[in-house]
Amino acid sequence: MGSQQNLRTPGPTPLPPAVREALAHDMIAHRGRQFATILRACTDGLKWAFQTQHDVVILTASGSGGLESVIANTLDPGARLLVASMGYFGERMARIARAFGVDVVQFDVAPGQAIEPDLLVDRLRAEPNVQTVFVTHNETSTGVLNPLRELAQAVRQVRPEALLLVDGIRSVGSVAVEPEAWGCDVIVAGSQKGWMIPPGLTFVSISPRAWERQAHSRLPRFYFDWQQARRAADEGGTPWTPALSLFFALEVALGLMHEEGLAEIFARHRHLGQYTRDGLADLDLRLVADPRFASPTVTTAYVPEGVDAKKLLRSLEQNHNVVLAGGQGQLEGKVLRVGHMGWVQQDDLAFVLHALEVELNSAHTFSSGSRR
Amino acid sequence: MGSQQNLRTPGPTPLPPAVREALAHDMIAHRGRQFATILRACTDGLKWAFQTQHDVVILTASGSGGLESVIANTLDPGARLLVASMGYFGERMARIARAFGVDVVQFDVAPGQAIEPDLLVDRLRAEPNVQTVFVTHNETSTGVLNPLRELAQAVRQVRPEALLLVDGIRSVGSVAVEPEAWGCDVIVAGSQKGWMIPPGLTFVSISPRAWERQAHSRLPRFYFDWQQARRAADEGGTPWTPALSLFFALEVALGLMHEEGLAEIFARHRHLGQYTRDGLADLDLRLVADPRFASPTVTTAYVPEGVDAKKLLRSLEQNHNVVLAGGQGQLEGKVLRVGHMGWVQQDDLAFVLHALEVELNSAHTFSSGSRR
Repeated sequence: MGSQQNLRTPGPTPLPPAVREALAHDMIAHRGRQFATILRACTDGLKWAFQTQHDVVILTASGSGGLESVIANTLDPGARLLVASMGYFGERMARIARAFGVDVVQFDVAPGQAIEPDLLVDRLRAEPNVQTVFVTHNETSTGVLNPLRELAQAVRQVRPEALLLVDGIRSVGSVAVEPEAWGCDVIVAGSQKGWMIPPGLTFVSISPRAWERQAHSRLPRFYFDWQQARRAADEGGTPWTPALSLFFALEVALGLMHEEGLAEIFARHRHLGQYTRDGLADLDLRLVADPRFASPTVTTAYVPEGVDAKKLLRSLEQNHNVVLAGGQGQLEGKVLRVGHMGWVQQDDLAFVLHALEVELNSAHTFSSGSRR
Repeated sequence: MGSQQNLRTPGPTPLPPAVREALAHDMIAHRGRQFATILRACTDGLKWAFQTQHDVVILTASGSGGLESVIANTLDPGARLLVASMGYFGERMARIARAFGVDVVQFDVAPGQAIEPDLLVDRLRAEPNVQTVFVTHNETSTGVLNPLRELAQAVRQVRPEALLLVDGIRSVGSVAVEPEAWGCDVIVAGSQKGWMIPPGLTFVSISPRAWERQAHSRLPRFYFDWQQARRAADEGGTPWTPALSLFFALEVALGLMHEEGLAEIFARHRHLGQYTRDGLADLDLRLVADPRFASPTVTTAYVPEGVDAKKLLRSLEQNHNVVLAGGQGQLEGKVLRVGHMGWVQQDDLAFVLHALEVELNSAHTFSSGSRR
């Protein structure tokens, strides 16, 4: 597809030529009418992809900054937050919340599992003081997509007034979300995922209920203050100097997404997820994710017994120009991860699977004990 | 100089062609060896331009995020911070500190004035509990460059152990700083200023004394945690996904700066500052800055009595493709600001001065009362 590498990590993802051209645009004044027009187009395009009429603010930071903004804008010191975690990125949210003095109740499931709505109901019933719930939509470390609609229903059933915060960094733009219909108060996305642009921007959708909470929440915030972002956007700008190049790119990428169509984008990701899982299974690789909740954007597979994961990844890059990702947290060294989101077609993944087959059949990779 | 516009705001600044080409580079994995090499080159280049052996961390955020990182990493709730402010950006630092629960003592000088070292000595003597001092090196709203070396001496004289925090966003890279020799513990810079790349990265130099403070300071932080940034950099990466395109651009821009030479860059900025001030004075425009402390990177001038500043800026853009900036804070509507930093030569500014002369001589701009 014209890329130098077949970059198939779960973000950053490859850039279409029109996006790369937009990135090379010269600077403009960030307080002028030209930027106001771009910001409006980006905001409208994001609301379309988030399928929401909620406000969407754009912050210059990577996704972790977006997650920090969620904590800083919705919670009080010592407030009780239920973090339903499926792995590495759920853990990260718990770490951010603890760093800000939030009282985190962590609810973990085993790697590869989704959160069961019934268990969330039970857990919430046992936690009468929890008014805020966090879930990861798509856990990239394991390749699991939570049943977000059902989890949101579970929250509404037990605690209708609670705030539901969602890490949608590896889902929104590639997977359907319906913030209003499901009752998701806050959803965070990251620019280097399905959006086909580089890292450096994070997008946050904010419900009226979340705005009410924001007005009274007392954690310190400045750079990540949503109210400042909304007020500046109403006047055609951002409160602090924005990463202009990424806005140029985002406007173009949203145009490409609009041409393809949202339903078509979601269907393509579902199809490519299935295609990747089938291909990996054909290579006798065991998938980490419960097949009922396998992710449309990333697939995590255990490397076979005796195979050195790092060596396999290196061979894929050196011999085939295929770049995949390794494991994170407790899965480090045990798995490989294939990203299939953003600017990706079946041929790209066919090539990845072919390269994997070649390397797995090669004796060189079966030597984890003899490397050093 | 090949730019579409003659963009002369005090940031963002125009991009050299090689930088624009670098921005268009396709994505790479941010946990691989290629990025580790780029990160190392960028960090080394920044230390060269900061003229320091202190650690320099690179954060994905605009300069205001860098300033927030300074507060969050060095202070405790309720700690007393002396903010010596020359205007809008000094005010911003005071706002950030207050948002984080810091006890700010603000020490203001009139617009156009620098901080007098003697007055800083007096003020510090009157504030025995202040262990942290903040100064803006270059106040962009007024075009004043503080005598940083002398101010640092003043701090060391009264309170040798205090931490000196510096907003160097509109100076470092274009103006000399000597963190060790002067005793500046923390200096923040921003990518869209003299560095010739887009906004979205902020650079922070951190002294051993600042690291000691950081280890014990108790304000909440996660995304902006310096320790996480340093630890990840030691391993060839960043703690959160970096704005890769801006790193590609930074490596190239630092190469261009190295070719020109640091002494030459500083001399060019000093010369262009003088050239701009002389040219504006020839047009009978009154400068805001005390001439003893006029900035080498930005010049602020009052618009003549009866001239509508917004209309003047619009005419410059429409008729000459020259983009300048208006006033901020209490100077809004009263001044225009000319940026002369980064990728700029005398011809660019000659053109700005010519365009200004044409517009000031035109009857259309002398009509602030009759606009609406």
